Amino acid sequence: MTRQRLGVCYYPEHWPQSRWSEDAAMMKETGLSFVRIGEFAWSRLEPSEGAYRFEWLSRAVDTLHRAGLKVVLGTPTATPPKWLVDKMPEMAALDANGRSRKFGSRRHYCFSHEGYAQECDRIVEHLARAFGAHPAIAAWQTDNEYGCHDTVLSYSPAALQAFRRWCEAKYRSIETLNEAWGNVFWSMEYRSFDAIELPNLTVTEANPSHLMDFQRFSSDQVVAFNRRQAQIIRRHAPDAMILHNFMGAFVDFDHYALSDDLDIAAWDSYPLGFLERSSHDDDFKLRYMRVGDPDFQAFHHDLYRACGRRGWQVMEQQPGAVNWAPWNPAPAKGAVRLWTFEAFAAGAEAVSYFRWRQAPFAQEQMHEGLLLPNAAPNEAYHDVAHISKELDALNAQVETARAPVALIFDYESAWAWRIEPQGQDFSYFDLVMCFYRALRRAGLSVDVVPPTAAAIADRTLIIVPALFAPSYDFAEALAKSGGTVLLGPRAGSKTGDFQIAADLPPGVLRRIIDIRVKRVESLRPGARITLSGHGAFVRWRECLTLGEGVAPEFTSEDGETALARSDSVFYLAGWPDEELLTNMLRRVFLVAGISTLDLPEDIRVRDNGAMRYIFNYGATATDISALVAEATLLIGERLLESCGVAAFRRRD
Amino acid sequence: MTRQRLGVCYYPEHWPQSRWSEDAAMMKETGLSFVRIGEFAWSRLEPSEGAYRFEWLSRAVDTLHRAGLKVVLGTPTATPPKWLVDKMPEMAALDANGRSRKFGSRRHYCFSHEGYAQECDRIVEHLARAFGAHPAIAAWQTDNEYGCHDTVLSYSPAALQAFRRWCEAKYRSIETLNEAWGNVFWSMEYRSFDAIELPNLTVTEANPSHLMDFQRFSSDQVVAFNRRQAQIIRRHAPDAMILHNFMGAFVDFDHYALSDDLDIAAWDSYPLGFLERSSHDDDFKLRYMRVGDPDFQAFHHDLYRACGRRGWQVMEQQPGAVNWAPWNPAPAKGAVRLWTFEAFAAGAEAVSYFRWRQAPFAQEQMHEGLLLPNAAPNEAYHDVAHISKELDALNAQVETARAPVALIFDYESAWAWRIEPQGQDFSYFDLVMCFYRALRRAGLSVDVVPPTAAAIADRTLIIVPALFAPSYDFAEALAKSGGTVLLGPRAGSKTGDFQIAADLPPGVLRRIIDIRVKRVESLRPGARITLSGHGAFVRWRECLTLGEGVAPEFTSEDGETALARSDSVFYLAGWPDEELLTNMLRRVFLVAGISTLDLPEDIRVRDNGAMRYIFNYGATATDISALVAEATLLIGERLLESCGVAAFRRRD
Amino acid sequence: MTRQRLGVCYYPEHWPQSRWSEDAAMMKETGLSFVRIGEFAWSRLEPSEGAYRFEWLSRAVDTLHRAGLKVVLGTPTATPPKWLVDKMPEMAALDANGRSRKFGSRRHYCFSHEGYAQECDRIVEHLARAFGAHPAIAAWQTDNEYGCHDTVLSYSPAALQAFRRWCEAKYRSIETLNEAWGNVFWSMEYRSFDAIELPNLTVTEANPSHLMDFQRFSSDQVVAFNRRQAQIIRRHAPDAMILHNFMGAFVDFDHYALSDDLDIAAWDSYPLGFLERSSHDDDFKLRYMRVGDPDFQAFHHDLYRACGRRGWQVMEQQPGAVNWAPWNPAPAKGAVRLWTFEAFAAGAEAVSYFRWRQAPFAQEQMHEGLLLPNAAPNEAYHDVAHISKELDALNAQVETARAPVALIFDYESAWAWRIEPQGQDFSYFDLVMCFYRALRRAGLSVDVVPPTAAAIADRTLIIVPALFAPSYDFAEALAKSGGTVLLGPRAGSKTGDFQIAADLPPGVLRRIIDIRVKRVESLRPGARITLSGHGAFVRWRECLTLGEGVAPEFTSEDGETALARSDSVFYLAGWPDEELLTNMLRRVFLVAGISTLDLPEDIRVRDNGAMRYIFNYGATATDISALVAEATLLIGERLLESCGVAAFRRRD
Repeated sequence: MTRQRLGVCYYPEHWPQSRWSEDAAMMKETGLSFVRIGEFAWSRLEPSEGAYRFEWLSRAVDTLHRAGLKVVLGTPTATPPKWLVDKMPEMAALDANGRSRKFGSRRHYCFSHEGYAQECDRIVEHLARAFGAHPAIAAWQTDNEYGCHDTVLSYSPAALQAFRRWCEAKYRSIETLNEAWGNVFWSMEYRSFDAIELPNLTVTEANPSHLMDFQRFSSDQVVAFNRRQAQIIRRHAPDAMILHNFMGAFVDFDHYALSDDLDIAAWDSYPLGFLERSSHDDDFKLRYMRVGDPDFQAFHHDLYRACGRRGWQVMEQQPGAVNWAPWNPAPAKGAVRLWTFEAFAAGAEAVSYFRWRQAPFAQEQMHEGLLLPNAAPNEAYHDVAHISKELDALNAQVETARAPVALIFDYESAWAWRIEPQGQDFSYFDLVMCFYRALRRAGLSVDVVPPTAAAIADRTLIIVPALFAPSYDFAEALAKSGGTVLLGPRAGSKTGDFQIAADLPPGVLRRIIDIRVKRVESLRPGARITLSGHGAFVRWRECLTLGEGVAPEFTSEDGETALARSDSVFYLAGWPDEELLTNMLRRVFLVAGISTLDLPEDIRVRDNGAMRYIFNYGATATDISALVAEATLLIGERLLESCGVAAFRRRD
Repeated sequence: MTRQRLGVCYYPEHWPQSRWSEDAAMMKETGLSFVRIGEFAWSRLEPSEGAYRFEWLSRAVDTLHRAGLKVVLGTPTATPPKWLVDKMPEMAALDANGRSRKFGSRRHYCFSHEGYAQECDRIVEHLARAFGAHPAIAAWQTDNEYGCHDTVLSYSPAALQAFRRWCEAKYRSIETLNEAWGNVFWSMEYRSFDAIELPNLTVTEANPSHLMDFQRFSSDQVVAFNRRQAQIIRRHAPDAMILHNFMGAFVDFDHYALSDDLDIAAWDSYPLGFLERSSHDDDFKLRYMRVGDPDFQAFHHDLYRACGRRGWQVMEQQPGAVNWAPWNPAPAKGAVRLWTFEAFAAGAEAVSYFRWRQAPFAQEQMHEGLLLPNAAPNEAYHDVAHISKELDALNAQVETARAPVALIFDYESAWAWRIEPQGQDFSYFDLVMCFYRALRRAGLSVDVVPPTAAAIADRTLIIVPALFAPSYDFAEALAKSGGTVLLGPRAGSKTGDFQIAADLPPGVLRRIIDIRVKRVESLRPGARITLSGHGAFVRWRECLTLGEGVAPEFTSEDGETALARSDSVFYLAGWPDEELLTNMLRRVFLVAGISTLDLPEDIRVRDNGAMRYIFNYGATATDISALVAEATLLIGERLLESCGVAAFRRRD
Repeated sequence: MTRQRLGVCYYPEHWPQSRWSEDAAMMKETGLSFVRIGEFAWSRLEPSEGAYRFEWLSRAVDTLHRAGLKVVLGTPTATPPKWLVDKMPEMAALDANGRSRKFGSRRHYCFSHEGYAQECDRIVEHLARAFGAHPAIAAWQTDNEYGCHDTVLSYSPAALQAFRRWCEAKYRSIETLNEAWGNVFWSMEYRSFDAIELPNLTVTEANPSHLMDFQRFSSDQVVAFNRRQAQIIRRHAPDAMILHNFMGAFVDFDHYALSDDLDIAAWDSYPLGFLERSSHDDDFKLRYMRVGDPDFQAFHHDLYRACGRRGWQVMEQQPGAVNWAPWNPAPAKGAVRLWTFEAFAAGAEAVSYFRWRQAPFAQEQMHEGLLLPNAAPNEAYHDVAHISKELDALNAQVETARAPVALIFDYESAWAWRIEPQGQDFSYFDLVMCFYRALRRAGLSVDVVPPTAAAIADRTLIIVPALFAPSYDFAEALAKSGGTVLLGPRAGSKTGDFQIAADLPPGVLRRIIDIRVKRVESLRPGARITLSGHGAFVRWRECLTLGEGVAPEFTSEDGETALARSDSVFYLAGWPDEELLTNMLRRVFLVAGISTLDLPEDIRVRDNGAMRYIFNYGATATDISALVAEATLLIGERLLESCGVAAFRRRD
């Protein structure tokens, strides 16, 4: 078992070398174990072509090492320097309007540009050769936040050529592609792979099959880009962990697929920025403006835990106000500690703060750090010192037990319903979050997993909302799982080619519940399909015909089956409002034999092995005695303060 | 007299040939009389340049023919195939931002590109030659929904050259154009026709005269494009009807002008999609989400009836949920029947449903049809079978009586007030709809007509809202019409050159009412110019000086004439709210000697010859006994159900 | 002392020459003293290259002269003719999307294009030579509304080259620039000035230092463009005044800097259009829709008074409804007079109306004038005649006393907080307006001035909200000023390089109050930091540490210092709501020894020398006896009507 640790992100190149050892000593003293460095430093590592300047980085690593800190070294490929861009201007991505995305910030490259990929090979090779054997370097981070600033999709000539080859490799014959995409519609048929265009700037919307394959291709390009770096690093640093720092509410590429080339899935957790950017209403945003959505971070912890083959962690934890949301309030007193323990409760290897010291210059000068720009300790500095001591006292470990409840999250589905929402507010991410929130409010610990047989083995309950195009194998696995299964609206409604499932939705899922979706409709805000006393459908509803062995469990007032059941398989025929969600899940939990907790509104619970954590996201102190019962609290009080964290060992 | 018929849109190329005869048999059995086919099939009719493949289409036509169905054959020019686009990439339209509008959906062509026009000549010529004499083919449809997806205006080099020649032909000398446009303003004078630019990407708004001529030119290009096809078809199929399928709330080209080359004006009626895309508020949209705006379809029936020289029809009737609106609910039970009879009540030759069978692939896979994707009957299939029997029982005929009330609708006016709204929410279309709705709620059948002498002959009441630049001849015709005339705000306010009318508005209309508009103002939401007890002006008001023989009929509380009257001519000096509209029209009806009906809120009435139809757009059953009186209902009940239709023969 | 005068804008080229003398006679008779002409007439002055046609302009000037009117002659450089644009198409500005901004309206040029600048030199030289000695010409206007329609920033190749040279001149070495901008961040370092790019189309936001320097450069280009014209005119017309007509709420270039080359700062005052385009809420806009924001015009009068070295004036005063706002209502009865006297009360040399006669053609045909399009007098014509008589009766003079209160307004600060708002609704202009409004509602006359030592000498109170990067000299001047000083949020928070101020904000201002800003946060709408009984912070708040001699004057309920005080220096740590603003200023006034007036809500007061003016912006008559006391009203009544103006001589 592994002790849970704290880290920080640091940019030695931003500060005089004379300051480094003092910084390192302070880090160590605060209880930090490791430091991430290097990931934007290309212009300092290679100020002009081939003129490598690694000495300063060596000195920085050595300084940290001497202070007893480990290092996560980032490859600098998210920020190619100007001389490189000037050498090959066509390495830029083009946006959907055909405009070249220029130098002057970061991520100014197209994933499909082979010339740039070779430059990355080169700089990574040099770095890995120079630092691969350094004893301080515990892990390597590839690039930084792939896809940030909408950079996955590029409409460049390089992307066009690569997409044509990708299509050719997938379909072999152009007739097969035309058939798969249904190109007979609107005479969209191609006569060769070289006639295929990218799906931007079309007169009206492009073919959804075309859009879906372009999205898959684009995701594959990110995965391939990352793999080249991972392979080079592994050659030179076979014992180091390889990781990448993912983002929140970000689905532009398949994180499961990319993680196959990583050891650790890391992510960057900015609860307040994410809340501001979310689709929540103003009341919700106001209410949680200083603590964040109580379920958003937990969801991502549970998702990225499924991604990391050898662990997961938070790479960038918000430590104060940030600079990039529409509004940037400061965290509530205690919120940084709350967020940190939420991650550890979900089994994080580490939580690392972004950043050590607030930079006084450039784009992120308004982003707070553990230190103020003048090097004085900021609030979070003291928080971290305190958390470090608590971790020691708890002897907090990474646990790896499997949760009884699995919630399927699938990147293709996210793309599918973005391509074809059918109702303006149909968001796959939001729908999955609805289910997640309801499960968490029932006190359940959840695994968020891909739609694979392995992921659903040994689950008591498997929830499958809006799964775009499940494979036959996955349908089989569901059939054999032994667990209770809840299928959501739109599940199984398409084939992988983005056609309506054969003999109507839910297609291959009819294997487990014999229904047909004969009609779907999207509902504008205010429109509700009511179920007497059970809540209502909003946004989306379906009309079913029920086959053998299927009975209506809930029925709408207009006479349609709202919840169908066949033994331990349920199908929910719409987007539930909160009331329906609660009532429906109560029925499902009963069948699954799952017992739940009765939690006060802003209280959340998470088990990490035998350790149970309780969190208070509310503005007032709340009595949690009923949840603690006879147990002894290791941290926290029975009257749990706002932003408070309690922990105890469960007897069972 | 002609029996009113039912039809359907069908894409044999989407389905195996083995299925065609079963489809045809089902169509016939359901009571359908004709089938539209072919309009997007270019890539199947000519898979590569000059390689014509018409055999399959022949087989499809023959199959339908054998089943006793007539055919409307579409030309495929809305969807040029990829090989053609690759041959002449400059055939693409450019959008107002100068971006080429790419292949990948439909309508990817510029109306001004002569090379593409010649390709269209060629394919239409081949098709007309091959099918012109086929006994099954009753009509030809040119292209499909001209202008859909904002395709009328193109800013391509081809459009620029053609616009320069169009200006030259219109103005002869550049001095005349400079004078007409007022180019002395801001030194915008041109020294030759070749110096003229298109009015996009200007630093601030372009000259309204420039914009207006560009809009006229663009409309003319559509008309000319259509005329080429019509002439070719007439040569080869002299007895067939030629039609085009227009859209709703669409004014980008002059439909009257284009219809001069057609026999039948058809239109595509999607009540729920149109409602969602309209400017109505959320309450209205929620209330009518499953039945559509009670007056929108009727307005278009009455408009396109004026367009069709030899008749009009609905070519695409929504049969279920569609895929293209912000939200896409299913129609209410009975709504498809309601919409169908509303069209027949307005004198439609035919109502044709879109589409026969829902396609499982490509852009419209979420658009419902009469059949489900798996070929099982969908709800509308049964509706249609029922409607067919009712039509037989009614022996429903196309009647062609002239309505006593004429409402002027003018495409130039729509362009003018889009170019110069002066207040952000001044919409010509919405203003005309206000009047139309009020007339219809008074139980009146209305003709929506162009501003021509012929159109207003023998009318009891002529309503002329916001007519941009009436001709002297039209003013004369109004003077001599003998009917009561109601002029609306902005009527006659400009010359055809888009200059303020000589000696102030209403310009030539001063011929019939001696007033001058000395001031106009637009009013933000919430601002109201009240008339004690008579309602208020919103959005727009004018201040008048009254000449000889003109008296104020209504006066605003701030002392301005709100409704001026000179004998049987009225001028309304603003945009009326609902209350003012009702009160004002009551006064006008009295003068005109028009009697009205007192209709419950969601009840509508329409006469087709001696047949009176009553429609219930409300959510609850409504007693219509007072409207039926002693007559015998041929369909429907006196307690008319939600979405119900009643019909009876009037005694008078 | 100078008598305050009236003028008008006139376009002789729009009307037949036969009309000119009648227009001139009417102008004179109405009481107008001068006429602005010529500023858009290039295509008439030089219809083709080198073919100068000045005769008509001579005749127009002579005609006005003979009628006893003075002339302000505009240079026509805002509207280069088509032949010139065709000769050098690359003179166009590019917008931030890289699109060329085309001919067809006005201002279609890039300030950095040397070729166009030379063409301007040429036409101005010819005009100045021809008319420089004409006795009628009292002043010259350069160009027209620099920057209108977003034309200051251009992303053209010419701008890029000029920006590189500008950077080189400023920084000398590229290392210095890299250091100043903090380009080590994200590897944005440049290796030469020729590698610098413009800050548009970057993947995410560009470096704020980069954006700030581009904004400074762009402002400098405008100043330089204007200086060339001013120098040419001065050579040929050494005695004429040179002026330019600025706009309202417009900060895209530094108006103080540009004014150094002018004699008179003029501005174009459109109270209703500005209100519609402002950030006020709908209630406010509805309430003042016919009279405008009661403080907006006054603010600009007070600002441009600081700009004009030898005076200031209103060049274009709205006389009726305009054409360019979202909604365009007519002014209230009396509003034109109200606006006119508000300008004179602030010391305007002149108020000139736009325009003489409404043009029936082109873009501004819906913009009212003193005459209607048919030459009949419009309402404002009569207003002007009346005002003229009142001015005579008052013998109204330009007074030049210094106000005791100085409010700092700084263009760099406006750019800075637009570049880095940090909270979506942080607007520097709006913040300064908050303070201005509060001062004006307290009955104070205010000078709006730049942050210079000279501007703050001899002030009782100096208010410095959000001053971006005060110079050390300015901080020194504040220290020595002897007046009470109120620093606002964000004041002194940055260095001129756009880095966080050394040792934390307020940087050099710590010289006068020993505090440090340890945290800032932006607050979403609805979020409030309350001070018990004193109001609240909204939008923005800061947390301070207090040094020696600094005490909290107000404290927030969460325990932070809200208003810090050190002797006569205050620092306000947030954006005050109206209640806090009032309470806080009351405290500041007390310390400063400033006495205020207790004004009814819509009443405003302004002193011009010994003359005190009282204005009623409200909808109802209001008793102002308490304000008038024993004085004798020269105009107006003690029960001051809506839109009323009263004036009297103060005894003190």
